[in-house]
Amino acid sequence: MKHTIGVLVENHFGVLARVSGLFSARGFNIDSLTVGETEDAEVSRMTIVAHGDDRVVAQIMKQLNKLIDVIKVVDLTNEELIDRELVLVKVSAPAQSRNEVMQIVNTFRAKIVDVNSKTLTIEVTGGESKIDAMLELLRPFGIFEVVRTGLIAMSRKSELTAPPKQAGVSTEVKGGVKKKSAAKLAKV
Amino acid sequence: MKHTIGVLVENHFGVLARVSGLFSARGFNIDSLTVGETEDAEVSRMTIVAHGDDRVVAQIMKQLNKLIDVIKVVDLTNEELIDRELVLVKVSAPAQSRNEVMQIVNTFRAKIVDVNSKTLTIEVTGGESKIDAMLELLRPFGIFEVVRTGLIAMSRKSELTAPPKQAGVSTEVKGGVKKKSAAKLAKV
Repeated sequence: MKHTIGVLVENHFGVLARVSGLFSARGFNIDSLTVGETEDAEVSRMTIVAHGDDRVVAQIMKQLNKLIDVIKVVDLTNEELIDRELVLVKVSAPAQSRNEVMQIVNTFRAKIVDVNSKTLTIEVTGGESKIDAMLELLRPFGIFEVVRTGLIAMSRKSELTAPPKQAGVSTEVKGGVKKKSAAKLAKV
Repeated sequence: MKHTIGVLVENHFGVLARVSGLFSARGFNIDSLTVGETEDAEVSRMTIVAHGDDRVVAQIMKQLNKLIDVIKVVDLTNEELIDRELVLVKVSAPAQSRNEVMQIVNTFRAKIVDVNSKTLTIEVTGGESKIDAMLELLRPFGIFEVVRTGLIAMSRKSELTAPPKQAGVSTEVKGGVKKKSAAKLAKV
């Protein structure tokens, strides 16, 4: 079963390395991991998509909760989700096939973001099945390049937000000793 | 100076952990890292945005090239780029302010993907400055939740693609001994 997990992490140096290291050390099979800033500059948000039974996913969430940089972990799987991915596709589209490619673009409400005599570059957003269906239709024309962001997700009903901070308390909530790093990754 | 680096990696177990570990071990300051599948199921593509002088970025690229799972590294900074990010924003929008929020949505050619009596959820794609400008305008209304994918980028002129594979050769190109893992991360 596919699980979608939202994780709020402190924007500390090396947190992406620790989270992805946790997955690789334990052999968890993940489909995608996305990380980006939130409204709070000190907090980043990850969306992790993983396949596995409920026991495996419960184990993943438990391990994530143990990391001192992790503020909150939520399994979004059973929520009503808004989930989206952004994809850029450069596809062969010389004059004779351009119309056909543009029909596909319109059908999927995608956007053409660049064009030259031989190719069209298309921007499309959507869930996994929409993206896959569009790529399937474009494939016969010749796909030169695909860049995908991986999925981000948000619950329709509830918010995943960090608890309000109390000076000198929040950093000790998880009982860990935090290392201060001179350098800091702005987003990861 | 902001650098945008495209990296093609073999879709092996733990490659995200190795790449992000490389950055954290050397204290490189990166703004975002995105990873997704390509048309070749065995190859993933990362987009890394990092600030630093040319010497630092040259060092990052050299270190990336040393990793055995890395197929190709390209500095896209001086290319004509198509770069985009996808962001979901849940913003407070009760009846009295809804029209104003919707005007902002239309101005930025964003999409409303969910609505209830108190909030609007907005999907927007664009470069960093567009996204930041929109969030700036929405902030006074009250932002409940933001999820960002991080930037993906593609050159307008040339393609970043893996060289064609020759059986039994490609895995030894970089001179490393590859570990076979029972488990495998599908995308990362």
